[in-house]
Amino acid sequence: MASQKAIGVFDSGVGGLTVLNAIRKQLPCENLVYLGDTARVPYGTKSAVSVQRYAAQATKALLKHDVKMIVIACNTASAYAIEHLQAQFPDIPIVGVIEPGAIASCKASQTGRIGVIATEGTVNNQAYHRAILELNPEAMVSALPCSLFVALAEEGWHEGSLVESIVAECLKPITATLENPLYESLDTLVLGCTHFPVLKGAIKNVLGQSVTLVDSALTTAQWVERLLNERALSRGHEEAGSLRFFVTDGPDRFRRVAGSFFSESIDGCSVELIDIQHID
Amino acid sequence: MASQKAIGVFDSGVGGLTVLNAIRKQLPCENLVYLGDTARVPYGTKSAVSVQRYAAQATKALLKHDVKMIVIACNTASAYAIEHLQAQFPDIPIVGVIEPGAIASCKASQTGRIGVIATEGTVNNQAYHRAILELNPEAMVSALPCSLFVALAEEGWHEGSLVESIVAECLKPITATLENPLYESLDTLVLGCTHFPVLKGAIKNVLGQSVTLVDSALTTAQWVERLLNERALSRGHEEAGSLRFFVTDGPDRFRRVAGSFFSESIDGCSVELIDIQHID
Repeated sequence: MASQKAIGVFDSGVGGLTVLNAIRKQLPCENLVYLGDTARVPYGTKSAVSVQRYAAQATKALLKHDVKMIVIACNTASAYAIEHLQAQFPDIPIVGVIEPGAIASCKASQTGRIGVIATEGTVNNQAYHRAILELNPEAMVSALPCSLFVALAEEGWHEGSLVESIVAECLKPITATLENPLYESLDTLVLGCTHFPVLKGAIKNVLGQSVTLVDSALTTAQWVERLLNERALSRGHEEAGSLRFFVTDGPDRFRRVAGSFFSESIDGCSVELIDIQHID
Repeated sequence: MASQKAIGVFDSGVGGLTVLNAIRKQLPCENLVYLGDTARVPYGTKSAVSVQRYAAQATKALLKHDVKMIVIACNTASAYAIEHLQAQFPDIPIVGVIEPGAIASCKASQTGRIGVIATEGTVNNQAYHRAILELNPEAMVSALPCSLFVALAEEGWHEGSLVESIVAECLKPITATLENPLYESLDTLVLGCTHFPVLKGAIKNVLGQSVTLVDSALTTAQWVERLLNERALSRGHEEAGSLRFFVTDGPDRFRRVAGSFFSESIDGCSVELIDIQHID
């Protein structure tokens, strides 16, 4: 039965585990297969053509495990590749994180002034701009690349005064408008990279109470649930779902870093090394 | 004539341009071909097996351009792959950056207490330990992973008080011993990643005058010159050498970031996109 199949989730590396975490909490009975393309991480500074190719290879690798749905748990890959993937694999539902993030930000914003922080790739692609303006044509969207946050998140620099100083320096273009009465400043900020939720506390401390932070992981998980129900693909609620991990490089490093992004222990789970670079 | 051929230099991305820069200054008449594997950058957090494969693919790609020598302008690739490459391609001289860096550090150190800062991969591999101990069996070598420095260098965060605070935090295990009279502290620190020389000023300010910083780029360039002379491969001194660049992703980004690492303008040079992931 199709509903017994797993949901396939992929990301450039470990960051997408924040999305897997939300899906796991929302849908504890679903079998989940996660693929981290750690051999080529990060995607955020790579070109559109490369990210599209990597995303297609990840999707094909997951399809070999007979999944019933694909979740792109990476903003850069969602921004660059979701349309290509949906066209290339029309028979399987494919969910990205951009549209759920856009919906959540439009719900959260009172003023329609919405900021997005993301990798260079996601900012250049303007996927959030388009998705938000489609929902609210009056919205004013501004996007800021914060590629350095990926390294902070990966290196375990999540909080403390030095981290806040770095975050403050990166977010200066935003805080400058918050303090300037000439600007109508934003009231909502989308964490447009799956690595960024681990820096939420530091970002909140820098921006203060007037800005609501939106993390698309939860909204994506809700979107996945709705789609499973609509297509009668839900596995039911009887037994706990399984967790299985694949990486394209360094399973040991993946295990070590995973804890920052995924709240459940993965000690009992397999983390298998696969090669996807030769997939055509 | 073999001597008219170019020298092939490769790195995971832009960092190796600090080595290319030194070679260009030392040997201005040599034709140089540089390959940056920007589609899979960085190498520093990837596994030995992957880095060995990527380095072999980069070498094969350079050999297609009929080069007379290969320079591995990347510490991680030198640490993991130089022996494999020398065994696989016995007919061409292959130079890494570790051995020249080790020689320079042994020359610079009075006390034999030498520190190495590098990526996770280079530290784990202990290539500097082995190379330094071979030159000076009495040396005391300590290595510290500073992967965050790669992101700082790439993002253009090279100086200023915030950069120095970050550098100070990363180098705490070293500064703690400098300040502690119980330790015989190091007098020499090897910048064991080609990205790090752009942070030299900040590192110097944090460590003070008692520690000599060693950047292997210059020593590597001298090593290349000696080898060319020994093997009668030097091109001579009559006309300026050419510069040619290949990248595996994002030539525009490469042009934009190159200025931080290479002192000559590359505006007039070609930066060509090639695919090396399918090379067996």
